[in-house]
Amino acid sequence: MARCVPQHLIKDRIDSARERLQKCEIDGLIVLSPTNKGYLSGFTTGTNIAPGGVLLITAGEESPHYITSTVDFQECRERLQPRGFEVLRYDYRKGQNALSITVDAARRLGLRKVGVPQSSITAGQLRSYEQEFDQAEILPIEDFIAVLREVKDEWEIKQIRAANRVSSNAFERIIRQVKPGMTEWQLAAELEYRLRLGGEGSPRLAFSSVVVSGPRTCMPHGSVTRRKLQRGDLVTVDFGATCNGYCADITRTFVVGSPTDRQRKIYSAVLQAQLTAIKQVGPGNKRAKAAQRGMDVLGEKGLAEYAVHGAGGHGIGLQVHEGPTTGECGLWEPGNVVTIEPGVYIPGWGGVRIEDDVLVTETGYEVLTPIKKDLLQVKS
Amino acid sequence: MARCVPQHLIKDRIDSARERLQKCEIDGLIVLSPTNKGYLSGFTTGTNIAPGGVLLITAGEESPHYITSTVDFQECRERLQPRGFEVLRYDYRKGQNALSITVDAARRLGLRKVGVPQSSITAGQLRSYEQEFDQAEILPIEDFIAVLREVKDEWEIKQIRAANRVSSNAFERIIRQVKPGMTEWQLAAELEYRLRLGGEGSPRLAFSSVVVSGPRTCMPHGSVTRRKLQRGDLVTVDFGATCNGYCADITRTFVVGSPTDRQRKIYSAVLQAQLTAIKQVGPGNKRAKAAQRGMDVLGEKGLAEYAVHGAGGHGIGLQVHEGPTTGECGLWEPGNVVTIEPGVYIPGWGGVRIEDDVLVTETGYEVLTPIKKDLLQVKS
Repeated sequence: MARCVPQHLIKDRIDSARERLQKCEIDGLIVLSPTNKGYLSGFTTGTNIAPGGVLLITAGEESPHYITSTVDFQECRERLQPRGFEVLRYDYRKGQNALSITVDAARRLGLRKVGVPQSSITAGQLRSYEQEFDQAEILPIEDFIAVLREVKDEWEIKQIRAANRVSSNAFERIIRQVKPGMTEWQLAAELEYRLRLGGEGSPRLAFSSVVVSGPRTCMPHGSVTRRKLQRGDLVTVDFGATCNGYCADITRTFVVGSPTDRQRKIYSAVLQAQLTAIKQVGPGNKRAKAAQRGMDVLGEKGLAEYAVHGAGGHGIGLQVHEGPTTGECGLWEPGNVVTIEPGVYIPGWGGVRIEDDVLVTETGYEVLTPIKKDLLQVKS
Repeated sequence: MARCVPQHLIKDRIDSARERLQKCEIDGLIVLSPTNKGYLSGFTTGTNIAPGGVLLITAGEESPHYITSTVDFQECRERLQPRGFEVLRYDYRKGQNALSITVDAARRLGLRKVGVPQSSITAGQLRSYEQEFDQAEILPIEDFIAVLREVKDEWEIKQIRAANRVSSNAFERIIRQVKPGMTEWQLAAELEYRLRLGGEGSPRLAFSSVVVSGPRTCMPHGSVTRRKLQRGDLVTVDFGATCNGYCADITRTFVVGSPTDRQRKIYSAVLQAQLTAIKQVGPGNKRAKAAQRGMDVLGEKGLAEYAVHGAGGHGIGLQVHEGPTTGECGLWEPGNVVTIEPGVYIPGWGGVRIEDDVLVTETGYEVLTPIKKDLLQVKS
């Protein structure tokens, strides 16, 4: 598997951004979010996805500028100069910062109208940018790069597929070690170790894992504690590795020992809701329908009130939560990758969630998560 | 060690925030940053430090309101209601969000002027807040909670001390396994596993570790790669566990086998710079002096140009980078905790960094990081 995104894809992405800038009659774009910087530069494997600083793209043919601190300068130059980026550094010791060097660059490039996504700049930063830019006007705009990212290309799909494979292997290996007396904490640490070892090109996990057990499974994103697993517990594990910056996001609920009738029944309802929701995913289908149909199943079983986050999910990619979601109007497009994750949480009793990553294909959908979904019973 | 911050400290923190609000004639504060929410509520052990949503504090005696999603509601209520917080939920399925429920609460509380730190709200969010708040004016303000956090109380110091102990134990255990042929990646995974297992009350690491080897040590925050360690390599490892949300941040450079004269010389210069800088830390001393004196040492050895991030450091606490820093004017106060981390990075050759966490005491300083600083040689 190629470690780095092919150069022609970087070119396509920057061309798409430029096209959009030209359409909006803006002549520059300031990119601050690590995921957008990673997407447009191909540098997605740093400790913060992409290194800190500013990516400045023009509507014209000038090289994109990556403006970073002296700390990240060498690696940025090594990796981005061969891709046609101009890499500039700021040095705090000389009173410089990302903003001051960006202002200089914008002046040299003769930019007059510079857009900045208002979802990735703080109100305080925006004020500084408005004050410091002398020759250009700063325009807070919608984050159209995040929208471009909603449709994954073949290389990106490969990464998400690989992240799912790594995550699934880690889970299947760890699940064999689970037994009563193990703490939530140990389970999380062992799983994360495997996720971390198996990932590619980036040292980070997709997110801090959730491991909740027994009655604590009624908390969808509960903290990990030192609670010991007990015979009869439900255990919910929400986890994901990254490959070259791209996330997997998977949840399984299993039982320690033999399930009770009620555990079996609730699990089977959630599974049926998930399978039903997944079947609604396909190009041209309404996004909201997946969650609706999943909820219909839970409603029929009298479980709707316990499905506190519904039966749909969210896009995944460089971020573990990104667009598109099943909570939005609009239609699926080939290349969207989304989680489908219905959950039922009964206070005082416990909960069940089943989450897979699903790709929208040209003709329908493909589930990228290879872990089986029968109610898994670990030895007690 | 107490797992939870004592209630009287929570009361003190909220009282300090209220005092400041009264002084500024603002009658409410919207807290959005996870670290500030964690600091003011004591909930610092969630997967994102504190759960998502809004913490609303009034200048008066009303209970603080924690407004969170249905996903985090149960755990928030369990943990924060006994501490005197009113916990409210928003339900996306009903068209609610954090903002809509916060507006309702502010209206009920009769708030007229509500401050929000401009460094933790995006420009887009601020626009929505300004539009949706009907009876109250929204005022972007400086983040005075982050400033309160710069002086740690006894409980917080205990956590940072514990995080340093865990991190040091992990490092000393892993270093015995290091040998030529091991990859940067494996070293990072093994170390993070131990950091993760040993931490307390929070599943996260302080940050994604840096492990760079050989010529790659000239990149202070280089990505972790599959490069194999070789005899003669310098290896730099920058890492930290968390305890109840509080970070350690430690760096050591070691050598695989026997050091060359140049390696020994550069290491010794960096160590001398670090020891000199640390001696400048003490109550009432100028913050900037630590970095200056450290740089003086490097300058005398002709290494100043290679010290790309200087010879000082930054505050640590719930965030791995917070105030105060050695780059600022102002004086040290007892309770500040800061890294001192000079580094020298010679392109094409390699680099050395030595970083400890240092507490400002009533009478001087205390180094919280117990790992020795002689140039460590691992077996080759």
